[in-house]
Amino acid sequence: MPQTKILLDESEIPTHWYNVVADMPNPPTPPLGPDGKPIPPQALGAIFPEALIQQEMSGERWIPVPEPVREIYRLWRPSPLFRAYRLEQVLGTPAKIYYKYEGVSPAGSHKPNTAVPQAWYNQQAGIRRLTTETGAGQWGSALALAGQMFGMKIRVYMVKVSYEQKPFRRSMMQTWGAEVFASPTDMTESGRKILAADPASQGSLGIAISEAVEEAASRKDTNYSLGSVLNHVLLHQTVIGLEAKKQLEKIGEYPDVVLAACGGGSNFGGIAFPFFADKAAGKKVRLIAVEPTSCPTLTKGQYAYDFGDAVGLTPLMKMYTLGHDFMPPGIHAGGLRYHGDSPLVSQLYHEKLIEAVAVPQLATFEAGVMFARAEGIIPAPESCHPVRAAIDEAMKCKKSGEAKTILFNLSGHGHFDMASYDKYFSGQLEDYEYPAAAVAASMQRLPRVG
Amino acid sequence: MPQTKILLDESEIPTHWYNVVADMPNPPTPPLGPDGKPIPPQALGAIFPEALIQQEMSGERWIPVPEPVREIYRLWRPSPLFRAYRLEQVLGTPAKIYYKYEGVSPAGSHKPNTAVPQAWYNQQAGIRRLTTETGAGQWGSALALAGQMFGMKIRVYMVKVSYEQKPFRRSMMQTWGAEVFASPTDMTESGRKILAADPASQGSLGIAISEAVEEAASRKDTNYSLGSVLNHVLLHQTVIGLEAKKQLEKIGEYPDVVLAACGGGSNFGGIAFPFFADKAAGKKVRLIAVEPTSCPTLTKGQYAYDFGDAVGLTPLMKMYTLGHDFMPPGIHAGGLRYHGDSPLVSQLYHEKLIEAVAVPQLATFEAGVMFARAEGIIPAPESCHPVRAAIDEAMKCKKSGEAKTILFNLSGHGHFDMASYDKYFSGQLEDYEYPAAAVAASMQRLPRVG
Repeated sequence: MPQTKILLDESEIPTHWYNVVADMPNPPTPPLGPDGKPIPPQALGAIFPEALIQQEMSGERWIPVPEPVREIYRLWRPSPLFRAYRLEQVLGTPAKIYYKYEGVSPAGSHKPNTAVPQAWYNQQAGIRRLTTETGAGQWGSALALAGQMFGMKIRVYMVKVSYEQKPFRRSMMQTWGAEVFASPTDMTESGRKILAADPASQGSLGIAISEAVEEAASRKDTNYSLGSVLNHVLLHQTVIGLEAKKQLEKIGEYPDVVLAACGGGSNFGGIAFPFFADKAAGKKVRLIAVEPTSCPTLTKGQYAYDFGDAVGLTPLMKMYTLGHDFMPPGIHAGGLRYHGDSPLVSQLYHEKLIEAVAVPQLATFEAGVMFARAEGIIPAPESCHPVRAAIDEAMKCKKSGEAKTILFNLSGHGHFDMASYDKYFSGQLEDYEYPAAAVAASMQRLPRVG
Repeated sequence: MPQTKILLDESEIPTHWYNVVADMPNPPTPPLGPDGKPIPPQALGAIFPEALIQQEMSGERWIPVPEPVREIYRLWRPSPLFRAYRLEQVLGTPAKIYYKYEGVSPAGSHKPNTAVPQAWYNQQAGIRRLTTETGAGQWGSALALAGQMFGMKIRVYMVKVSYEQKPFRRSMMQTWGAEVFASPTDMTESGRKILAADPASQGSLGIAISEAVEEAASRKDTNYSLGSVLNHVLLHQTVIGLEAKKQLEKIGEYPDVVLAACGGGSNFGGIAFPFFADKAAGKKVRLIAVEPTSCPTLTKGQYAYDFGDAVGLTPLMKMYTLGHDFMPPGIHAGGLRYHGDSPLVSQLYHEKLIEAVAVPQLATFEAGVMFARAEGIIPAPESCHPVRAAIDEAMKCKKSGEAKTILFNLSGHGHFDMASYDKYFSGQLEDYEYPAAAVAASMQRLPRVG
């Protein structure tokens, strides 16, 4: 039996993050202000610290990981790389399947990879409090953990319906010392406005973002923190791919295909970008973003300038979008419901340097269960997406007889998502394909630029 | 900063389990039948396979781990050993605190260490189905995982109140392909009897055991599997202590104190017994079992022959007991509510070769929260017990100025126990000391032997 886990010593935690901008054929598109002109970096200073704004704009290939961040990374990093040997046997495929497992972090997902440096840079800038929004709670718990590590106050605006229906992520955040409020609250102008119109509002991610940003912008000691989409977030996540490359190197392997779930893009960028560096240098490797058919941003959206939030408060970003007023249908991969996508991921996709595929919900859970029964680990619904795509690739290999090497990012475990599995088993879930007509209608409502 | 994680390569997974019986000064007390006479091994054949019965009775010091079991162990073993450096800093103690983290198993606890070999030996004996009982679901999910790995059917009788109130462990078991029934069921004589008397019965662990054993005893293709107490279960768990010893050796350390939660004894025996081997050879090391003040089996119970279950179906075992009719108060460390204890642990405690301490519930959660805020990982309520005891030892060191080396077993994470943390934060938990009078009264009802 081949080696199951490829481990690295904690001295091998990357000393630098990889910035994909340095290897992109074209410079990234700038974020635009309401006037259609590129917004100056200092405009972001009200909610982000200087160091993160610099990273957001940087073209440097390698950006050093501060030692205090590496020290916290050591609590769970380097994360293990697994050979899915038992899954290969079940499939009867000649393909070799590897997965990088990010569920070993105390928060259970890859999110702390960026939460920790974000908290640290803010603390270094004299900031004492961070606000953020969270839906099901994965990002909020990562930031709660990170804040606790550097003695910072974390305030999480949690979408009310999740706050009430998913109390366990909330308890997790509180265990790490964060304040968690059901959004809309009466503590912000944004929240009060919503409540005045609808006192029974169940909240939404868009409203929670507005509350978090409003508070951060109005207090000098407080900044705002975002868990995906932005360049610096994807930058921090490249520790995943950098470690995976080193781990595969140790056993003399290199992937033919790299797969990851793609919502805002941090999961995909985290594992795929370090391999893009090789691709840019001429190496053959396919990088595939996997999204749900119910929220097919890359595969069905349009590449255009759009708002990052639902209400239109953020700068305009050029990205694949389903329209900022896209209403996500009730799918259970909460982390993949975003209407847009990382501008960096979008640009690479637009330039046909990376690929994308959409997978339906039932087949995705089917793959997750198959994986759990072969490999033990129960994947988070988001992570079931690349599992599905990896199985599909492996089955193509079975047909063709090719012994390809497949790598995917198992970005988190499903311990807080068992209710979704329950619904899958009891037949309460269904497939949903976001209708082309709805996409077309949303496109009519894209903001005009300039 | 010193090394945070001490890892082993999967080639270093122990090749043999350590049998403490070989180093005990006196032979273990035999289980007795209703006639007060030692029961012959073959009497257990109706529910256990030959190989496990042999292990139950064995005096051999080293028992080989079958290769197929080691292959499954590789999915998460060797588990990491952590230096709790950040906790030491928070406490300001000169003590060095290490913890062995068993929450990395797919089931989230140490339980699969024995579930996997139990499933394997049964499969080798031609058994196709295993039954078991579960309360909150930790053991049931471990056996579901193990059964899936060897293609065996697992049927779990889950205490009805847990089945209804804690659906997520149930979904976990189903994800791994197990059948889970709310006990009492109408599928067994035992269940029907209970339902006839009380159709609204919420069940109990005692009833669930009766159902699982009855089914196993009445079907040729079916055996029964137990998650703690018995000698072979503790034997399998010694992989924990064997690995921990090797990990400490790598960095030139040896513990002054080893701590673990003690309910049925498999958690404690798992980490402590391999160190007992050294103690028996003259080495100075304290081995301390940590139990809740609400179920103080070792510290307040009596060393006597008693039934293993509530209704008196099992053989009599000599152990510390609070009486088989002990009604556990509503504490949240579900795994520590057992009225008795492992006969091996009990005998070593009776002979003053190991120690025991009881800790109250509030101080235990307080320690768990302190640990989570320093180290990230949120401990299961059971695992909060040795955390409390480790902090107490470390604070003694702070007073005395001694730089002792403390090792404890962090047997599982608390992802499925956040409701308990919630109750702690909202002030709904309280301390409970099991009253001496209740113990005394229970002792009057101990079975007469011979």
